[in-house]
Amino acid sequence: MNIDMIQAAAARLKGHVRHTPLLSSPFLDEIAGRRIFIKPECLQHTGSFKYRGGWSAISALDPETRAKGVFAFSSGNHAQGIAAAAKAHKAPAVILMPSDAPQIKIANTRALGAEVVLYDRATEDRDALGAKLSAERGLTLIKPFDEPQVIAGQGTIGLEIAEDAKTLGITCADVSICCGGGGLTSGIATALASDAPDMIARPVEPEGFDDVIRSLKAGQIVANAATTGSICDAIITPSPGEITFPIMQRLCGTGIVVTEDEALRAMAHAFQRLKLVVEPGGAVALAAALFHPDAFTHDTVIAIISGGNVDATMFSRALATLE
Amino acid sequence: MNIDMIQAAAARLKGHVRHTPLLSSPFLDEIAGRRIFIKPECLQHTGSFKYRGGWSAISALDPETRAKGVFAFSSGNHAQGIAAAAKAHKAPAVILMPSDAPQIKIANTRALGAEVVLYDRATEDRDALGAKLSAERGLTLIKPFDEPQVIAGQGTIGLEIAEDAKTLGITCADVSICCGGGGLTSGIATALASDAPDMIARPVEPEGFDDVIRSLKAGQIVANAATTGSICDAIITPSPGEITFPIMQRLCGTGIVVTEDEALRAMAHAFQRLKLVVEPGGAVALAAALFHPDAFTHDTVIAIISGGNVDATMFSRALATLE
Repeated sequence: MNIDMIQAAAARLKGHVRHTPLLSSPFLDEIAGRRIFIKPECLQHTGSFKYRGGWSAISALDPETRAKGVFAFSSGNHAQGIAAAAKAHKAPAVILMPSDAPQIKIANTRALGAEVVLYDRATEDRDALGAKLSAERGLTLIKPFDEPQVIAGQGTIGLEIAEDAKTLGITCADVSICCGGGGLTSGIATALASDAPDMIARPVEPEGFDDVIRSLKAGQIVANAATTGSICDAIITPSPGEITFPIMQRLCGTGIVVTEDEALRAMAHAFQRLKLVVEPGGAVALAAALFHPDAFTHDTVIAIISGGNVDATMFSRALATLE
Repeated sequence: MNIDMIQAAAARLKGHVRHTPLLSSPFLDEIAGRRIFIKPECLQHTGSFKYRGGWSAISALDPETRAKGVFAFSSGNHAQGIAAAAKAHKAPAVILMPSDAPQIKIANTRALGAEVVLYDRATEDRDALGAKLSAERGLTLIKPFDEPQVIAGQGTIGLEIAEDAKTLGITCADVSICCGGGGLTSGIATALASDAPDMIARPVEPEGFDDVIRSLKAGQIVANAATTGSICDAIITPSPGEITFPIMQRLCGTGIVVTEDEALRAMAHAFQRLKLVVEPGGAVALAAALFHPDAFTHDTVIAIISGGNVDATMFSRALATLE
């Protein structure tokens, strides 16, 4: 994965993926004590940045392979991103989901045109099922983050930041990034190193699920103790990827850990000041910018909002922090 | 007010006002039974389209007049738009608000840099107070809608729609517009008549407060029976303006009336499918597109979301319609 792949992905994505704006609010600047800009990938097709990686990977397949179809393991944003990107390419998409996934996620993924195959987490082996499907139908697996063309797609966000910040006269900044397996973070970091070398990528994770930050400190990949039990479920992964980790080691600044309460409060501020709907995992980078000002070094922080797929109950919890 | 004034306003606004995108969702297309695009002015600075009109009017003043300052009567979106646009011009702004206006609105307007002067609705004459302030301090009144430069600023939305729709290959469409006094509607209608002559502006109002639609039917200005008691308060005015009404008579198609419940349901769909925070009055044009499909004539409807300044309690009412 390198800058040439990101630029090639940007060329393929042009006109199909939304170039999201940089938003700001004087009220948020006041809280953060500096100028902050927000890159709202919740406004991306399917409500998260995952559409970029999905589009990039599917558009990079040779036409014959693509026509056979793709598959993914996911019950979340990656599933929707792959389903919609495959549909746009008129390619079949099969999404393997645990049978206990929320009905709304299954329905949404189907509505976006994918075939959903359910499996029983207790009795069935997901990987074996995937391998069988792949062999029988010639489907290509699109991994959620540890896949070069997926990383290249997420990296296009970094190109857009470099371009739009330059228009605003900004060249130096910390770029605060919601971090799961590191696909988004390593893609953006690679793009910034090329197009905005005075910006630094800063991974942000929720407390208790800070595998990337601990791995960066340890100098080797370490895993989370658990992968369930966080409201920031959209960005929880077992451990950083084998491709993403060395990139983050080389290019990222120190990570920042935020609490779940800070993520909920950041969601409430995004509601009130930006008019954006943000999911808990998508709010951690903004939470870092607002509530951990001492962790940043530059006068400007650019915070990525990674997604907005949140239900009314969880959103109401965030709104309750305003009272 | 004419297209030249809108184009001149667009030149002054460039780089200062957000060019909002056209968003879409296959889920909304499904409900509407046609292709719909959404122009989210809730993402505009200060959370509503009013910033455009404010910027346009203030930037059109000669520098000496501007330096003395501007004033407005408003407790809502116009107040915030004027306050922020005046601050950006380093011009003083005085906003006259009733002393029983919500504290949060008073605080927000002050935080945006305006001086808020409170008056007692029961005992003080607002217009006399304004005239006194104007005489003493040389302040210029910026009216909320019946003012050519304000209409020209709102009309820049129509230019953006024409430009962005063309990129998408769309030339024919109904443009569904949240309508109060008609500043937004008449500005957009004028821009469309010039730059997208196969598009038609369609005013949308909430039930019981449909003064513009009844005026268009009657062929003369008629007033609302009341101007309070609607959750769509942001777009409730006594009657159409003397400048805006003849423009709407000349250029607009039939209006559409929606219920408060439809506005709340449209807010919920914007939350779920667009990740946008919309206020009730800002949701009526989307509500018309979603729930009154027979009222439109073209294959494509472009719906304006006029603002997103809504509190958590009202937003929760909208979310409750999802259950």
